[in-house]
Order: sequence, then structure tokens, then C-alpha cells
Amino acid sequence: MSDTITLTGLVATNPRHIVTNEGLGITSFRLASNQRRFDRAQNAWLDGDTNWYTVTAFRQLATNAAASIEKGQRILVTGTVRIRDWESGDSRGTSIEIDADSIGHDLTYGTAEFKRPTLTAERSQERTEPHQDLDATAAEPARGI
Amino acid sequence: MSDTITLTGLVATNPRHIVTNEGLGITSFRLASNQRRFDRAQNAWLDGDTNWYTVTAFRQLATNAAASIEKGQRILVTGTVRIRDWESGDSRGTSIEIDADSIGHDLTYGTAEFKRPTLTAERSQERTEPHQDLDATAAEPARGI
Amino acid sequence: MSDTITLTGLVATNPRHIVTNEGLGITSFRLASNQRRFDRAQNAWLDGDTNWYTVTAFRQLATNAAASIEKGQRILVTGTVRIRDWESGDSRGTSIEIDADSIGHDLTYGTAEFKRPTLTAERSQERTEPHQDLDATAAEPARGI
Amino acid sequence: MSDTITLTGLVATNPRHIVTNEGLGITSFRLASNQRRFDRAQNAWLDGDTNWYTVTAFRQLATNAAASIEKGQRILVTGTVRIRDWESGDSRGTSIEIDADSIGHDLTYGTAEFKRPTLTAERSQERTEPHQDLDATAAEPARGI
Repeated sequence: MSDTITLTGLVATNPRHIVTNEGLGITSFRLASNQRRFDRAQNAWLDGDTNWYTVTAFRQLATNAAASIEKGQRILVTGTVRIRDWESGDSRGTSIEIDADSIGHDLTYGTAEFKRPTLTAERSQERTEPHQDLDATAAEPARGI
Repeated sequence: MSDTITLTGLVATNPRHIVTNEGLGITSFRLASNQRRFDRAQNAWLDGDTNWYTVTAFRQLATNAAASIEKGQRILVTGTVRIRDWESGDSRGTSIEIDADSIGHDLTYGTAEFKRPTLTAERSQERTEPHQDLDATAAEPARGI
Repeated sequence: MSDTITLTGLVATNPRHIVTNEGLGITSFRLASNQRRFDRAQNAWLDGDTNWYTVTAFRQLATNAAASIEKGQRILVTGTVRIRDWESGDSRGTSIEIDADSIGHDLTYGTAEFKRPTLTAERSQERTEPHQDLDATAAEPARGI
Repeated sequence: MSDTITLTGLVATNPRHIVTNEGLGITSFRLASNQRRFDRAQNAWLDGDTNWYTVTAFRQLATNAAASIEKGQRILVTGTVRIRDWESGDSRGTSIEIDADSIGHDLTYGTAEFKRPTLTAERSQERTEPHQDLDATAAEPARGI
């Protein structure tokens, strides 16, 4: 059982992209997730507290997120929660990280033009998606609105 | 308690966008969600069964999804499950719909250029996002990778 | 990515427990999940549509669920969605199954007395939980309300 | 959008139950959630990191949880994440709370005897569950394993 969560929110810092000595790409940024709640007294939706998360992506998702996401944009992200204690000099604390499985721009707030890149060797080895997949799925008829 | 779910998968039909007589925008499309499982005998991730869903979006999300999403793209979507019985002539069945809260292109599979539109009156009334929100959130310092 | 979902609802049929020729225990029952939504006009929470699911459990969870759960009780369940087409004589249709990872009685609606059984060989091999686990976790201090 | 999450784990402290001056019941305890991951090299499931959460329940769920849950038991919980900064004397930190919607004993690890209490006035006003509900749902036929 992994502690999976899905969040929508505002990207609050420009994504940082690094590549480790072993060639692993990592991208991370801070996300502000605003919770909304219905207030019966005021009969309106109000902004609740803001939760702050550090979102981290790896490999091809890291590369694409760094090339696509900017501070100030709205996104959705699904991934695994990791609660970590950290220390830096005299200060210490707890951070809540989301190890992202998938990230996308939130189309509630804008439009997006999607481009499929030439896959890297690492990625294509990991998840090959042959064209017959698409053809097979297209055979299933759509059902109306 | 609402039956919320987050899915990643392949858009299998071109999105259909309609506007009702009351002015409500609705967009829907079929989504093929491939489940992956680890096979111990083969020591590899295998494609499991495919689940088929009808994804439905409303209002501004419907408008933006129709302008952004094409058959064959990979997306993630979070929303509420609705299980409906349908009848059409002699045939009948059960469909599983996802009433989408949020949709985005899955950046695991490509890059995306995001554009924030001029908000429609309907949407801006519903969810006003003043600029001070962004400034406030930007004050929180990023924590490292 | 698996299509995981968490549901709360009413057990609508007495659980059926079978053991396959290979010795695999399986328990299943129907679950009615009532969605609640806030109606602004009436300023009250209303019952929305009911979603119907077939919940299926395996191995030790199947054994314990069959011994614990009765029709009419409120439960919560987390698991993976499986959408299946079925045929039986002339009739056919689609069923939505939840392959349960975990099931419990919903303590919103009552109290429960929990008993840890002697583990079966199958289960204890699969998930050994040594006592030092508990001692280790108990070392973490509680933080107040 | 609320930051909902479902967790399974070990109750690491005895639940504390208080009633505020306004008559609001609150129960809280610490939960250790062990993540499991498949290690390809060892071809086995291994325990991963442990995430620590403070789980908080209110009203009838608080009363029933306090009467049912003990340190050392396995539970599942679904609720909303709240990330809070705290200060106590010289020390400060961040805590991750789960505001519980529903809690139950995890039947993967034992059996439970469920008892529906006489509802309190507060609760019964909030969520009335007439008997016809159950009768109505029972009309839906079970579908086989």
C-alpha cells in the first residue's frame, strides 16, 4: 500500500532540474494547494487553508516537466507522499514531498498544446507503446454524452 | 463522501463538445486506462486489463478540454465516478462515467505549452483568482531537491 | 498506475465466501455507495445518486471479511477498479468490481471490537509483522490535538 | 478540491478523546504508514520508509473511534490532509494531520464485531439513515463471484 494522493494547485517556484552523476534526471518545485470549503452561514465557497508540498519528478517526467511548467501555472499531480525530516545548519523541520507519477497542466484554467517527443532510450525501454495499442483502443465505440 | 478517482490513460475518441440550450458547455470522450502490474515470474512490468471510461467535463473545463485534447494523447484526470444504466433501442448496458474535476496532458509522455485564456464571465464569477494570491504564495521559500 | 478508489457505503448482500480448487479464498458482496452533495437552494446536504459495486477480496482478507461483515453494515473499502463485460445466457452487461486492498467497518456509524487471529501460513509468509515493528513505532512521540 | 488521501497503517499511540466547551468531541492518535515496494534485484516486497501522521476525528466518529481503537491495531482511514506549522516553547515544526472522514479496522489483519449504537442527537440530525434505504438497496440483485 503506498500513500498516493492527487493534488491541484499553483506552482509557486520555477522548477529546478538537475541530473545526477548516474544520469538520473530530477525536477522539483513547490506547490500551493488551496482547499475550498462550503460555508453554510455565507452560502458560498471559501478558500480554506493552503497546504504546501514539494513535488519531485524523475526520468522522462522530470525532463518534460522542466520544459513545460513555469511558476504561476495551475497543475494537477498524482503521486506518493513522502514525509521527511531535514536538517540544515541549526534549522530543522519536516517536509512533505510528492514523488510524482504523473503531472499535467490543469485545463480548468487554460488551454495546452501537447507535443510527443522523440522518446529517450531510457524511457522507451521502460514503457513501449506500440501503435497497435492505439488502433486497438480506437475500435471501442464512443458512447454519447 | 463522493467516489473520487484519479486515472491516467489514452484518449480513444476525439472529444465531443456541445452547448445546451441553457448555455452549459459539455465535453466528453472515451478513455482507455491500462493497468500495469509486476509479474514476478517474468521479472517485468506487464500491461494488465484495460478499463474503459467515459470522461465528461463541464463549463470552462469543457471549453478548454475541447480546444486542447485530441484522440491518441495521454492524459490524467481526477473526478467523481458515476455508474449509469443506459438504453438505446434494443440494447442496454451500464456505463462508467467520470465527472471530471480537473484534466491535464500527462507530461510523462510529452511536453505541453500552457496558455491562460481570458476567463469567461461564468468562470471568473465562480473562481476568482486575484493576483495577490500568487504573490502571497511566492513568498514561501522553495526547499531544495 | 492502477485505478485505485476508496468508497464508503452500505453492504447490500450477505458476503459469499468460496475457496477455489487451488486453495484461494475469495469473498464478494454488493456495495451501495451513496454520494452526498450540498444543495445551495435548500442549504442542506442531499443524497445524490447511488453507485453499485461488486467488492471482491482474496486470501486472508477474504477469510476475515466473511467472518466479520454482514448485510446492512456500513464499511469503507480501498482497492482497484476492474470494469468487466459479462454474459449469462441471453443477458449481458458491464459490472464494476473493486478488487479490495483493505476493508473495515465505518466507525462513523458504530463501534467495533477487533481481534487479531492466529495468522494462516499463507498470510504470515506474505506479510510478517514482527513485534519489534510495533516497539519501533511506539518510540515516536505523539503530538497533541 | 480537497487534498484527500487513504492510508493503511499501525496505530502507534492510544487515542486521546476530548470534548470541547462547545460540546465537540475530538479524538486523535498517531499513525505509522509503512510503504511497501517491489525490489527487482531481490524479487521480493520490501518495507519502504514509514510516514507518520496525526489522525483526527470529530463528532460521532470521534466517540466511536475512541471506544474501538487501541494502540497496536491496524486500521484504514480516509480523510483530508492538513499541513500545519506548530510551536511549543523553543521547538517548532511541521505536522501532517489527517482530518478523518471515515476510519475502520483493517480486516486484512483480523476480524471485527461491529455494533451500531443508539445514535446521538447530534449525529442523527446530521445523517439520518431510514430503514427503507436498506430495503431499497437490497432489491438490487447480487452478481456472482
